[in-house]
Amino acid sequence: MSSDSTPGLDRLFSPRSVAVVGASTNVDSAGHDYVRSLKEFEFPGPVYPINPKADEVAGYRAYPSLRAVPGEVDLVISCIPAGGVLDLIDDCREARVRFLHLFTGRFSETGDAEAAELEREIERRAAAAGVRILGPNGMGLYYPAAGVSFRPDLPRAAGHVAFLSQSGNNAVEVSLRGAARGLRFGKVANYGNGMDITPGEMLRYLADDAETAVIGAYVEGVPDGRGFFEGLQAAAARKPVIIHKAGRTRAGARSAASHTAALAGAAELWSTVIKQAGAIEARSQEQLLDLMLGASLLPRAKGRNVAAVGGGGGRSVQSADACEESGLEVVPLTTAVREQVRAKAPQLADWIGNPVDQSILAGSGLSSNGLLQMMLADDAYDLAIANVGEDWFLGRPDAEGRLRYACERLADIVNASAKPVAVVLGATETPIDWQRPIIDGVRDLMTARGLAIYPSVERAAWALGRLAPRA
Amino acid sequence: MSSDSTPGLDRLFSPRSVAVVGASTNVDSAGHDYVRSLKEFEFPGPVYPINPKADEVAGYRAYPSLRAVPGEVDLVISCIPAGGVLDLIDDCREARVRFLHLFTGRFSETGDAEAAELEREIERRAAAAGVRILGPNGMGLYYPAAGVSFRPDLPRAAGHVAFLSQSGNNAVEVSLRGAARGLRFGKVANYGNGMDITPGEMLRYLADDAETAVIGAYVEGVPDGRGFFEGLQAAAARKPVIIHKAGRTRAGARSAASHTAALAGAAELWSTVIKQAGAIEARSQEQLLDLMLGASLLPRAKGRNVAAVGGGGGRSVQSADACEESGLEVVPLTTAVREQVRAKAPQLADWIGNPVDQSILAGSGLSSNGLLQMMLADDAYDLAIANVGEDWFLGRPDAEGRLRYACERLADIVNASAKPVAVVLGATETPIDWQRPIIDGVRDLMTARGLAIYPSVERAAWALGRLAPRA
Repeated sequence: MSSDSTPGLDRLFSPRSVAVVGASTNVDSAGHDYVRSLKEFEFPGPVYPINPKADEVAGYRAYPSLRAVPGEVDLVISCIPAGGVLDLIDDCREARVRFLHLFTGRFSETGDAEAAELEREIERRAAAAGVRILGPNGMGLYYPAAGVSFRPDLPRAAGHVAFLSQSGNNAVEVSLRGAARGLRFGKVANYGNGMDITPGEMLRYLADDAETAVIGAYVEGVPDGRGFFEGLQAAAARKPVIIHKAGRTRAGARSAASHTAALAGAAELWSTVIKQAGAIEARSQEQLLDLMLGASLLPRAKGRNVAAVGGGGGRSVQSADACEESGLEVVPLTTAVREQVRAKAPQLADWIGNPVDQSILAGSGLSSNGLLQMMLADDAYDLAIANVGEDWFLGRPDAEGRLRYACERLADIVNASAKPVAVVLGATETPIDWQRPIIDGVRDLMTARGLAIYPSVERAAWALGRLAPRA
Repeated sequence: MSSDSTPGLDRLFSPRSVAVVGASTNVDSAGHDYVRSLKEFEFPGPVYPINPKADEVAGYRAYPSLRAVPGEVDLVISCIPAGGVLDLIDDCREARVRFLHLFTGRFSETGDAEAAELEREIERRAAAAGVRILGPNGMGLYYPAAGVSFRPDLPRAAGHVAFLSQSGNNAVEVSLRGAARGLRFGKVANYGNGMDITPGEMLRYLADDAETAVIGAYVEGVPDGRGFFEGLQAAAARKPVIIHKAGRTRAGARSAASHTAALAGAAELWSTVIKQAGAIEARSQEQLLDLMLGASLLPRAKGRNVAAVGGGGGRSVQSADACEESGLEVVPLTTAVREQVRAKAPQLADWIGNPVDQSILAGSGLSSNGLLQMMLADDAYDLAIANVGEDWFLGRPDAEGRLRYACERLADIVNASAKPVAVVLGATETPIDWQRPIIDGVRDLMTARGLAIYPSVERAAWALGRLAPRA
């Protein structure tokens, strides 16, 4: 984290001190959650809950007003109703606060003219006071490295994936679901109505942020079209940027207006803009996560020639379809690999193909892991998909031991290769209770070893296809 | 189950007695699994393991040969190597066996000319002997109502969903994953190379089968083009039929040839054939399951006007996009519903829309369940999507209690309506261990109450869009 003199948004993401205005002793309120989040994340600087009626909130001494706080405040988080925000900005100016995050909502997004006018007045007042605003109508920041979070229960593990989200619930979902799949987050911001600090400004900032390796963004509309495009272009020139543009349809645009007062729409125009900037488009949260995972965990492929292994014959056929329909080239088994197979299992050498059908190998002394290793070592293949084929293992004696062994070995092979390998492991849900913790266990095992896991071969192939260089 | 005199495949699916040739005492073998499956499923008739070296297999008395079996045998399951099958057919003729299921593989699918010739000889010999063959190279039958299963660990619950699969691992995956989502299976068959009993014949049989309400099928290629089309047409005229055609691509067709010796390919032709027959096409296992679930658990929609509720603003925008992109009409909130909202929460009446953003309702006394109930009662809506919005609940105090309450109430509302409602609940995977059993718990709760649960709003909307009548 940088020094006081660093320009831009450093002090927003890494404040030295935080005040929460509207801090509450009610554990079922946002005014409590923000204070407790700082506690849970062991925020290293002073925390000042502002509440005229409480002595302390979540273990921190409370103050009756911002003016009563003894030290400097870099960031104020506001949980008070909309009507109190203009006075709060005066207090912020007085206290020389740099950043004000307005969790406070019910402004232009309500469609009410007075509420929209209040939002514009807040914008003018803040600009005059030199107070930068994140929000309103946004959950604000999740940046585990600096000890700030918009929810106390988010993962503490810190990483290099930044995420900007216009929507709060989407920011929570992406943070939780991404972490479950092994994404480690750096700077995450939910900016809501984006009144002052826009996604464009944040993209420009993240473009230069050495800590940020991959950027994802969920946008419904942008307040600053040109600024957004410039930020996107700057960021995409330096690191992978994935944009999930929602509000693509008539109904979606209508819904976006009542959510964050966004002017959405024009799906084709957006696709063109994203592509021209050099970023990658996602059309759902699943696609966004699938791409962020691949961009974050996998080395970049040198080409589009894919090896696929694992699972039985049906899975092999489906893998081939998924790869080819995702624009990957399913290169037939090379002579070099075929001769290696012939040396160990002559009867299979002219039968086995790419994708490798695991069930053909049964009893031969060869495994799909072994074939994967051979194919990754062969220049004919640029990238790979490894189906775990857990349904087969779960039907055998010592299912857990065999599955864990195969997954450990798979992790060894994948981690020893410089080529990207997407791993396919189905969802935890099985109708057989004892199987659930086994699947969770091997997923956790492989996630801990840094593997990129996809729940279906179609999603794995799609993500690889979007991330691999075009021929 | 029907009487002896019923024609067709009744005795295949409901044999009165079963012999397993190649039955084994090795618990890690198919020859053991088939016998143990009959045990676990409490098959009501005699079970005859055939093994010259064993006294018993999995608790049943073993016999040295099929000829030594004291009673009649309706179905023989073969786990012996390919070379022994011709003799086995002679034994079957002798013992007047009607159906022979050849789990035995390594025939034409190997690409070996001698193996392919042996397969043709088996076909001729069986036809002359009056023995009908299921397979070769297939796992055979899973029909819990009759106590037969190709794996001992599959769910015992019986239902009305039939599934035909060319691939064995795909049959296992669909059975397990379908059951986890609440599908209850009737007659499931993995027919492998489909030498004699073809998918076309089985479709004709299932068309007339009163117990079968929904049919799914996974095909790579079909041995009998015209027969398949006629069977498909007959079945689709009487019940929903979903076809997952794999081997659509060049690479997929190549892989299918080495898997089940299938002649695949010609994706567009297949799509046309499926559509002309009145069936529905799936292009992945996920799509197949999503459609089978909707066809099996949901009433048929009268039209395409959709209500969407639940989750925060981002989810609402994404729901609107997903619905419209799936060809559903997101009808704005009707005046009737809006006035009901006004009566309880006047400040929200002109703000709230369809999709219903749950976060707008916070503190109003209204919930997305309440709005869903109002919208389902309104003639303007034909079908609905309910997002559980579990990520929000999981961040609140008493998360489990509140989530369970909301899901119970949702089940009450959905089950009281004659309109189809797809429920969206994300995957079990969260990075927070204590949350996993809570999500599993509410999924189990809703599945037990017959709800159709989809892991994303995009998949829910897609399935509803494919199943709803065209305008």
